[in-house]
Amino acid sequence: MQYRQIFEDAIGNLKTEKRYRVFADVERNAERFPHAVWRDEQGTEHDITIWCSNDYLGMGVNPEVIAAMKSAAARHGAGAGGTRNISGTSHPLVKLEAELADLHAKESALVFTSGWISNLAAISTVADLLPNCLILSDALNHNSMIEGIRRSKAERQIWRHNDVAHLEELLAAQPRERAKLIVFESLYSMDGDISPIKEICDLAEKYNAMTYIDEVHAVAMYGARGGGVAEREGQMHRLDIIEGTLAKGFGVIGGYIAASAAICDAVRSYAPSFIFTTALPPAVADAAAQSVRLAKSRPDLRMAHQRQAWLTKHALMKAGLPVLPNPSHIVPVMVRDAQLCKAASDMLMTRHGIYIQPINYPTVSRGAERLRITPTPYHGDAHIAHLVESLVDVWTTLGIPFVEQQDVEAPFANDAQCTYPALATRRAAE
Amino acid sequence: MQYRQIFEDAIGNLKTEKRYRVFADVERNAERFPHAVWRDEQGTEHDITIWCSNDYLGMGVNPEVIAAMKSAAARHGAGAGGTRNISGTSHPLVKLEAELADLHAKESALVFTSGWISNLAAISTVADLLPNCLILSDALNHNSMIEGIRRSKAERQIWRHNDVAHLEELLAAQPRERAKLIVFESLYSMDGDISPIKEICDLAEKYNAMTYIDEVHAVAMYGARGGGVAEREGQMHRLDIIEGTLAKGFGVIGGYIAASAAICDAVRSYAPSFIFTTALPPAVADAAAQSVRLAKSRPDLRMAHQRQAWLTKHALMKAGLPVLPNPSHIVPVMVRDAQLCKAASDMLMTRHGIYIQPINYPTVSRGAERLRITPTPYHGDAHIAHLVESLVDVWTTLGIPFVEQQDVEAPFANDAQCTYPALATRRAAE
Ligand SMILES: Cc1ncc(COP(=O)(O)O)c(C=O)c1O
Ligand SMILES: Cc1ncc(COP(=O)(O)O)c(C=O)c1O
Repeated sequence: MQYRQIFEDAIGNLKTEKRYRVFADVERNAERFPHAVWRDEQGTEHDITIWCSNDYLGMGVNPEVIAAMKSAAARHGAGAGGTRNISGTSHPLVKLEAELADLHAKESALVFTSGWISNLAAISTVADLLPNCLILSDALNHNSMIEGIRRSKAERQIWRHNDVAHLEELLAAQPRERAKLIVFESLYSMDGDISPIKEICDLAEKYNAMTYIDEVHAVAMYGARGGGVAEREGQMHRLDIIEGTLAKGFGVIGGYIAASAAICDAVRSYAPSFIFTTALPPAVADAAAQSVRLAKSRPDLRMAHQRQAWLTKHALMKAGLPVLPNPSHIVPVMVRDAQLCKAASDMLMTRHGIYIQPINYPTVSRGAERLRITPTPYHGDAHIAHLVESLVDVWTTLGIPFVEQQDVEAPFANDAQCTYPALATRRAAE
Repeated sequence: MQYRQIFEDAIGNLKTEKRYRVFADVERNAERFPHAVWRDEQGTEHDITIWCSNDYLGMGVNPEVIAAMKSAAARHGAGAGGTRNISGTSHPLVKLEAELADLHAKESALVFTSGWISNLAAISTVADLLPNCLILSDALNHNSMIEGIRRSKAERQIWRHNDVAHLEELLAAQPRERAKLIVFESLYSMDGDISPIKEICDLAEKYNAMTYIDEVHAVAMYGARGGGVAEREGQMHRLDIIEGTLAKGFGVIGGYIAASAAICDAVRSYAPSFIFTTALPPAVADAAAQSVRLAKSRPDLRMAHQRQAWLTKHALMKAGLPVLPNPSHIVPVMVRDAQLCKAASDMLMTRHGIYIQPINYPTVSRGAERLRITPTPYHGDAHIAHLVESLVDVWTTLGIPFVEQQDVEAPFANDAQCTYPALATRRAAE
């Protein structure tokens, strides 16, 4: 057995298939967000603009969130010091869980070390506690949900993406008394499409199924208080388990579920991936709680986010760039070729100081390669103009096809509805 | 299907079996470590001493570690803003990985969101890349390692805990050319026993197997620079993959592997639990890197840790308390009954202001219930005296059996070898 050769071959295969990933070494600058420093392979520093961050609202650079982290670190130290059960349940974590239960108007919430772990832990534990459970999973669910489903012993069926007719077909084929868990996302992060939450809840009621929704790409950003798409659509109370992350819209790290006290307590008590790992540091919990509190009272930030996303889409479409239309803040620009996608990303970085990671297989299917652009409230008009110019240059240079000029409806009846100004950097905004 | 009832019953069962866990709501005080504030169920605050923290060296309250976290939060914000591939690879993370590769004298290191995820990701990925791999797993391996083993498609065999003769039997039964991965820990955290690393490496060489060691409860604490038990025993270079945590001896959060560049790159490229989750915040990475740097140059802290652990064991044994003997810093005091164990823990907290979490099934087997005590360099002589007194009171009150007075060999030839004084609190120590 030539061990080393096997690992080298595994890497070699990725390179041959042009899907070997190189991570960009980026230093975020809290005061100049979305600007950052990129170090190339020679260690040379370049000033860049990040256009692919999932810190969608810039909450991670919000001065109050940073202040909360700093002050909790000073008071409580840098770590939790133990698992939740063994000295790791800090008062900041207890308060964060209360904040999250309130956000989703649920009896209880439970925090995990990441959104990935939330899905693994909650889906597998809930499905295994329900006798003879059938999991009904949307075909495009995130890897962490699939891992939770696979880890459980439950039978699973896949319904075609966002296809409620197909979901109903599968539900109708089951005895009413059989335990069923419908697992789906509210906002799918690669295409930016939104699921029919109300229709799914209607089916769950009709066929006596439980519902599990991943709002990872929607919390902080949708709903009157940032409770997600389900809040916006008045469906939050109909969902049994709402899962979210503290790492994207809330800008910190960690994940959670919000649900009935009994469900949270059961997951807390039975999920090994919750039990056998060190708790999040108090400094992380306090920063996240501050972010959740802020989000509840900042519809202006959500409005500015939607506005800048719309302005970006609008400008790109006007320039004939192939934006995938969707009703959300995600701006996918299609390349449909792995090598071209990587080349476009590299050229944006080196020639224009614009950082947009190429999204290739397996994150999206082959032929659906894209640049996934995520405007924040801090990407102002000048940023957008520069982005459009740079993309047009890269498209032209690499010979990537343009499309006919398109238009996209503004999300606001008139601009006055958006009171928050588009601002260039965090420093200017605060 | 009465969903709610099922979850309530699941909780009810735990209560009937007396293994329902109540998390103590604890507020660490960085300046008075190991003192903290405990909020009881009525919300009343009590001053307590933590005696069960896995922040073994108090690194989480070290002023330099805290300062690193605060300054990185101020400069880079509270979160990473993305997965490692999508804008989440911060310069602090890159530096942390270099620091860890250096600690273990390996070509490379890879950081994960937790030690739990490190084991899940690395074991399952490595085993699945090796064709027809056989995993040989120590019977007492941690849950996270078992999850990694289960997630892989590889065949597995369990060898009796620390029994190299049994391991050899299993290895000898396999063709030399078959891929084999021996998975074990250096220091088992519940009993505090240490594995025969050299003998296991000898067998791995003899039978052409790869070795994977979990040094989670040893890094920072053993070896000349805190590289773990394998460093102390001169075996680090013989181990293919060393896994560790940043959350215990290093006092922060996160996990890692250190290995060849090819292995780290393969896990980086293939493990979904590494790929599809937000990276650790720069503030966490900088704090952890500072802690690793500190640990490398602080043998005095390791010495003080061993000394206080030994003093604690010695004093407890002298008082006839049933300490489980072992060669490490872990001090297990056996109760051997779930209900008594919980009662002892409760009484220590409410009557004596001492926080030691009961360790019951499934963390240890039934009949092996215990109080697991973890002295740090900051638990001084007065703390130890108070601990002994309190335990004797609780043992007497609850009628838990004492044992004959025992003695335990000092780990130092004479006290002068330990130059670091035992100090009461962090403030006094720095
Ligand atoms: C839909 C979805 N769920 C869960 C996760 C995991 O969340 P986290 O990054 O907090 O681990 C992600 C992305 O990372 C995601 O896209
Ligand atoms: C042996 C062992 N490995 C791994 C882990 C997980 O490490 P972490 O707490 O960083 O997730 C633990 C405990 O939590 C452990 O005891």
